[in-house]
Amino acid sequence: MAQDRGVTPRSENYSQWYLDVISHGDLIDDSPVRGCKVLKPHGYAIWEAMQRDLDDRFKATGHVNAYFPLFIPMSFLSREAEHVEGFAKECALVTHHRLRASADGGVEPDPASQLEEPLVIRPTSETMIWHMYGRWIDSWRDLPILVNQWANVVRWEMKTRPFLRTAEFLWQEGHTAHATRAEAEEETSRMLDVYASFAEEVLAIPVLRGRKSARERFAGAVETYTIEAMMQNGWALQAGTSHFLGQNFARAFDVTFQSEAGERELVWATSWGVSTRLVGAVVMTHSDDEGLVLPPALAPVQVVIIPVYKNKDRETVMAAVDALHAQLEGRVRVRVDDRDNLRPGAKYYEWEHKGVPLRLEVGPRDVKRGAAFAKRRTGGDKFAIPFEGAVERVEEILAEVQQALLETARRRLDERTYAAESWDDFVRLIEEQPGFYQIPWGGDDADEDRVKDATKATLRCYPLKQPPIEGLTCPLTGKPAREWAIFARAY
Amino acid sequence: MAQDRGVTPRSENYSQWYLDVISHGDLIDDSPVRGCKVLKPHGYAIWEAMQRDLDDRFKATGHVNAYFPLFIPMSFLSREAEHVEGFAKECALVTHHRLRASADGGVEPDPASQLEEPLVIRPTSETMIWHMYGRWIDSWRDLPILVNQWANVVRWEMKTRPFLRTAEFLWQEGHTAHATRAEAEEETSRMLDVYASFAEEVLAIPVLRGRKSARERFAGAVETYTIEAMMQNGWALQAGTSHFLGQNFARAFDVTFQSEAGERELVWATSWGVSTRLVGAVVMTHSDDEGLVLPPALAPVQVVIIPVYKNKDRETVMAAVDALHAQLEGRVRVRVDDRDNLRPGAKYYEWEHKGVPLRLEVGPRDVKRGAAFAKRRTGGDKFAIPFEGAVERVEEILAEVQQALLETARRRLDERTYAAESWDDFVRLIEEQPGFYQIPWGGDDADEDRVKDATKATLRCYPLKQPPIEGLTCPLTGKPAREWAIFARAY
Repeated sequence: MAQDRGVTPRSENYSQWYLDVISHGDLIDDSPVRGCKVLKPHGYAIWEAMQRDLDDRFKATGHVNAYFPLFIPMSFLSREAEHVEGFAKECALVTHHRLRASADGGVEPDPASQLEEPLVIRPTSETMIWHMYGRWIDSWRDLPILVNQWANVVRWEMKTRPFLRTAEFLWQEGHTAHATRAEAEEETSRMLDVYASFAEEVLAIPVLRGRKSARERFAGAVETYTIEAMMQNGWALQAGTSHFLGQNFARAFDVTFQSEAGERELVWATSWGVSTRLVGAVVMTHSDDEGLVLPPALAPVQVVIIPVYKNKDRETVMAAVDALHAQLEGRVRVRVDDRDNLRPGAKYYEWEHKGVPLRLEVGPRDVKRGAAFAKRRTGGDKFAIPFEGAVERVEEILAEVQQALLETARRRLDERTYAAESWDDFVRLIEEQPGFYQIPWGGDDADEDRVKDATKATLRCYPLKQPPIEGLTCPLTGKPAREWAIFARAY
Repeated sequence: MAQDRGVTPRSENYSQWYLDVISHGDLIDDSPVRGCKVLKPHGYAIWEAMQRDLDDRFKATGHVNAYFPLFIPMSFLSREAEHVEGFAKECALVTHHRLRASADGGVEPDPASQLEEPLVIRPTSETMIWHMYGRWIDSWRDLPILVNQWANVVRWEMKTRPFLRTAEFLWQEGHTAHATRAEAEEETSRMLDVYASFAEEVLAIPVLRGRKSARERFAGAVETYTIEAMMQNGWALQAGTSHFLGQNFARAFDVTFQSEAGERELVWATSWGVSTRLVGAVVMTHSDDEGLVLPPALAPVQVVIIPVYKNKDRETVMAAVDALHAQLEGRVRVRVDDRDNLRPGAKYYEWEHKGVPLRLEVGPRDVKRGAAFAKRRTGGDKFAIPFEGAVERVEEILAEVQQALLETARRRLDERTYAAESWDDFVRLIEEQPGFYQIPWGGDDADEDRVKDATKATLRCYPLKQPPIEGLTCPLTGKPAREWAIFARAY
């Protein structure tokens, strides 16, 4: 079992550390289908917590959920010129709809069941949804449409990494339709803010808001906005994107509306999404060499109570445990681990590796002094929490831990955002001290490719907050600087 | 637009009535992919409400959620002998993983990307999950596993009907693993009870609990238990199933555990599921010739408040509406319809067709007398609800409506459960007065087929509550009666 060896230290092998944290945390497992993973209960519970919180935020900003088909007619993918380049490549294709018995006693596709037009498993749903919006939109009265979908999508990936890159993954995709450009732009920006607040308030991940370069833009978008997070190794992780699609999809699917003035106009569009890769972002932002660390606001179990007793003390201890549980329940997400086939030490080990923020031990001596023995997942000595008023104290501690995780991550982001003076400087630094490099950028697409080829760093975004740049020269290209840009290696 | 013609009365054409209710209720739309529908926001919101309630019930009975891959290796489907018969037929097959540009400027599957082994889009996940359980289960300490999955599944269907039968649909599938037969049987029965309580308490659909005949059993199950509901036309609708799978899947996927006594034993299994077809069941149980009727416990919007005013009264009316809204919010699911591009009449029409249980109109005269003008979706005259104490009165009304819907449905189920004296009697009656026919059944599989061929009625279940049967003769076969069975035409 994985538990037999410890977690590989970050300093030794960061990639292996990530895999170990996930495996010890019991988050995910390999499946017999290449590129597809199984989200185990604890991993899925983290995604569920994200879903619940995000869904509330989407609804609070006027959105409703809907569900569109998994299958997209193949021809749809070639309707929007740039979209086809970006998505009509590595995708799963359904070509038959029936199995028949084969000579060897197994089954095989029935050739008679070949589809006239293959179906693509959605890699994203713009094409299907804009086809449908064409049926739903006729007048300005039908606008805006503010729809979100929770769904699975598939992008055939050769090299996978748990949560960060898998063939099938879970996500949400918002797709909105508007009467005016301004309204669609406002929506794009609103949803970027929703993602950023969610990341900071719930995931305790500070993010940089920015605009993508043309090279890194969503295929079919006019502008792609992003929130970029920094992992502990200084690499960037794109944590969410919000796209202003202009009228590209309306044009491709012929979606027009009659304006209040009586004119036929093309509809304006946005789309925005986050996925299960956010679980990977949480793992890589907060975990340590002991394993998973979950921010309290996200943790499916915030507090675990572990009774510690010999048989004669069972009743006394369990009475205190039950009372403590009753006091906490409803206010915090609490679990009592009363399994009697595991020793306390094994339980501590398991819950630590599952990233539970706070552990409360209750033994006969604790009952006597009227306090639980507490241990934060994030370190420090054990300390007593009196049963009386425990819930307030626990809430306080969870809030402190949440705040501390955010601050640590924010400090990392600040401290590891660097400058580079020249091409050579950058090439050396990005290797020696990975981080975000804030560059007064003057390059073009070809320059961007050159940086990527030489350093594996990409232009993560043009930060929305731009310091003054007039008169500066781009250190990487020697050209006049046009806009501040962040370069980093990225997942 | 669909709104231009009314809903077809049930008495005129029941099938068309069903389609009209769904279309006027704005629940679903056709998609460009044959057999796949789009769940529009109002239709999806009903499914979301079901999900939320069921998920709570699953968790309260000790289950956790997880997520398994969409794709199943083709060979898995032939591992369990009966399962292959039932599921390895009409299913979507992925054979390629890349598109390339085609000569005509479109795209086509790249022949070089053909998969070595085709992948099946899951029609149900027993095979994948039992493959994984084989990795997770080693000792009695690993049991039970109580996992549920919310997912989309695909069964290629030629004849579809919105919600009731579509190629892709949404569902939940529980898959549990146990150390003993007794424990697995207990789980099967527990989940049937969960479904039955949910149907009665939330959907206001009374159900008959029963056991399926061998002919109607889930492919791979030892026993399938079902909850059967009766639609307004007397047809049956299988609303949920819970399967005792014995050791069939453990055997097929070689899943054993070391028992406390130190023996290697095969694991015992259950699976259980309900799907978006429950939305169809709700539609067909409660709706009337005016359109959709939703039970309050399920309705995404329970109360709609509609301000009615001329411009000069706007402020007065909206102040009262806002206060009423504030009073109701948090206690009931309330929506204010303050769209100013629609007349009140059009709003009444829309919300009635969306099945909202209670409408509150507030105009200047209502403000003056301090009461809203109320209308139940289920009929009766308009009546006043004083603003003071409105929330208690509204909660009372919603509870009454919920109860009344359940009672009406229960009366229908009771009144339309019939007996038949002979084969000829049954053949005539099932046509003239469709309903549930409770038969002291003595037939075999071939007899069951004969009944189906002659009458389109199927053996829905052997009710769990069995009246005495000793000495009776089966009226359909003339054989000695073995067990009471319900026959009906079914969706």
